[in-house]
Amino acid sequence: TKRYSITLLPGDGIGPEIIFVTKNVLKLAGSLEGIEFSFQEMPMGGAALDLTGVPLPEETLSAAKKADAILLGAIGGYKWDKNEKHLKPETGLLQLREGLKVFANLRPATVLPQLVDSSTLKKDVAEGVDLMVVRELTGGIYFGKPRGFGINEKGEDIGFNTEVYATHEIARKRRGQLCSVDKANVLEASMLWRKRVTAIASEYPDVELSHMYVDNAAMQLVRYPKQFDTIVTNNIFGDILSDEASMITGSIGMLPSASLGESGPGLFEPIHGSAPDIAGQDKANPLATILSAAMLLKYGLGEENAAKRIENAVLDTLNRGFRTGDIYSAGNKLVGCKEMGEEVLKSV
Amino acid sequence: TKRYSITLLPGDGIGPEIIFVTKNVLKLAGSLEGIEFSFQEMPMGGAALDLTGVPLPEETLSAAKKADAILLGAIGGYKWDKNEKHLKPETGLLQLREGLKVFANLRPATVLPQLVDSSTLKKDVAEGVDLMVVRELTGGIYFGKPRGFGINEKGEDIGFNTEVYATHEIARKRRGQLCSVDKANVLEASMLWRKRVTAIASEYPDVELSHMYVDNAAMQLVRYPKQFDTIVTNNIFGDILSDEASMITGSIGMLPSASLGESGPGLFEPIHGSAPDIAGQDKANPLATILSAAMLLKYGLGEENAAKRIENAVLDTLNRGFRTGDIYSAGNKLVGCKEMGEEVLKSV
Ligand SMILES: CC(C)[C@H](C(=O)O)[C@@H](O)C(=O)O
Ligand SMILES: CC(C)[C@H](C(=O)O)[C@@H](O)C(=O)O
Repeated sequence: TKRYSITLLPGDGIGPEIIFVTKNVLKLAGSLEGIEFSFQEMPMGGAALDLTGVPLPEETLSAAKKADAILLGAIGGYKWDKNEKHLKPETGLLQLREGLKVFANLRPATVLPQLVDSSTLKKDVAEGVDLMVVRELTGGIYFGKPRGFGINEKGEDIGFNTEVYATHEIARKRRGQLCSVDKANVLEASMLWRKRVTAIASEYPDVELSHMYVDNAAMQLVRYPKQFDTIVTNNIFGDILSDEASMITGSIGMLPSASLGESGPGLFEPIHGSAPDIAGQDKANPLATILSAAMLLKYGLGEENAAKRIENAVLDTLNRGFRTGDIYSAGNKLVGCKEMGEEVLKSV
Repeated sequence: TKRYSITLLPGDGIGPEIIFVTKNVLKLAGSLEGIEFSFQEMPMGGAALDLTGVPLPEETLSAAKKADAILLGAIGGYKWDKNEKHLKPETGLLQLREGLKVFANLRPATVLPQLVDSSTLKKDVAEGVDLMVVRELTGGIYFGKPRGFGINEKGEDIGFNTEVYATHEIARKRRGQLCSVDKANVLEASMLWRKRVTAIASEYPDVELSHMYVDNAAMQLVRYPKQFDTIVTNNIFGDILSDEASMITGSIGMLPSASLGESGPGLFEPIHGSAPDIAGQDKANPLATILSAAMLLKYGLGEENAAKRIENAVLDTLNRGFRTGDIYSAGNKLVGCKEMGEEVLKSV
């Protein structure tokens, strides 16, 4: 039996519900592949603020650092919205990313055939969309290096170079197309970014590299999203574009994410928020978190078989017609968070 | 007869074609309202680089400053893409905006009933969209004050305050809803931004103010664009969101813009680029520039009647079935740039 320790950070709003359901799916998929998990639940975000006065307690960060991987639910809520910056749930998340040095944020946006009608885009534009935004996560204006965007003035930032390598690797494992998004016609930081991405491209002759300005990328995602395979961009542009891309699928309740560093545990979380308005009502869609657990297995632990089990179980559950409210359409079966989890368990 | 002097900046690519056509429309609409224009054409962008070695010659800027309004075609092209920053056509545009102190950039995104099918969004999502992005244009990371976003650390920037007032005025003249977009959960500059926008809101009790994070705004524009009336945001967020909003209409060849300061001439230009691939082929859609001339009349000169003439002429021409390639659909009449201009003239 292989053993892994997982730190669970349920967080706020619907976080606890979706983590509870996902934990069971992870357990079962693991046990069927000879994997045993030990789970440790730690406070984070608003929950930690209420409990300890800070959004990321030291104990939580050190537990996370020692784990093999971290699964996060969601953080934030109206209650803490007016807090000062250092007392915001969001600041805890930024501190966690920084503390774990997870510099590459992978955000797939896939339109599943079962859910193509959820998109506000016309069917022929939406169907077949399968792209991945790789967002630089620990640099840029998020961390007080406003002209940095993850690369220093001399273009020497090691973490950034490593990320560019990682991005080319990801593109290679997908359809081999990498689109680097910047604002190199205005920002010096983007000019350096472009230089590094281009330099490293020569080591990946099988990956086709292109460049696009961020304003154009925001348009092209609406115009013809199928043109994209892998997109790499900086922290703030990635924040905006990955959310835009996810909404294009029409089902953000379905989308997982992974945040990876050079070594050390990865951080896995759904891309949706804590949805305080439906918290505690058993209405949340747990599938984004369940798919984040699949990314955890694949990218965090290298357990591809267990990951595939979960992915297939999700597709199978959709094929059997189960839908939470956010992805419901006529002719399907409306279920709550728990029941969706039970149905996925049947399919694992 | 009223007399106005207009500086024309044709620029690059399709710029000269669309300016040529628009000048005639402006002349005719003016003469029917007892207005006489004097036009002065000046080099700018790549054209100026080739001619004088700089993207914004001093003569161009000083002519522009003396004019009653400025009409710009488009700038940029592959030829100058690898130039150093100070020798890029784009830098000339930034210098022009800065030189004219036009701090508020108005970008309407309207889905015309005649063109609703051009949108990649489903008809029920796209139809009726009528929003305006007001983008802060002379601050933010564009101008080396990375944490500033058009407001200094103490929230004292006069230009910025003036812009906030102007934005509330614009919202008041539209449907009275103002959505301020920021990233106040992460960026200090956004927290200050939010404070100022909120403070000034108390002087406009008839304008309904809301706040939205930029990543969410990028999603909401795709999910349900009709929720927006007037959006106000900083330079870089506005660059991205206004392009996204324009693509949602499906017809960026139709969208004008205005850049206004506290006093002095305004700058009017289509939001599309210089389209070097179709330059000189009489294929460009001149309607965005023609509608920019309408904004020039309305916002720049206060000549609402002449502006209405042009707006109505454009709608009438569309109703008569004339379409350039970018907005063509079966059953309509495909025309080039010049012919489209002639048809609009007939309708003025
Ligand atoms: C909550 C916020 C700090 C965060 C970010 O901006 O990174 C979120 O929007 C995200 O994309 O994960
Ligand atoms: C060409 C470029 C400098 C410009 C900008 O980013 O402001 C353009 O994208 C625009 O939006 O007018």
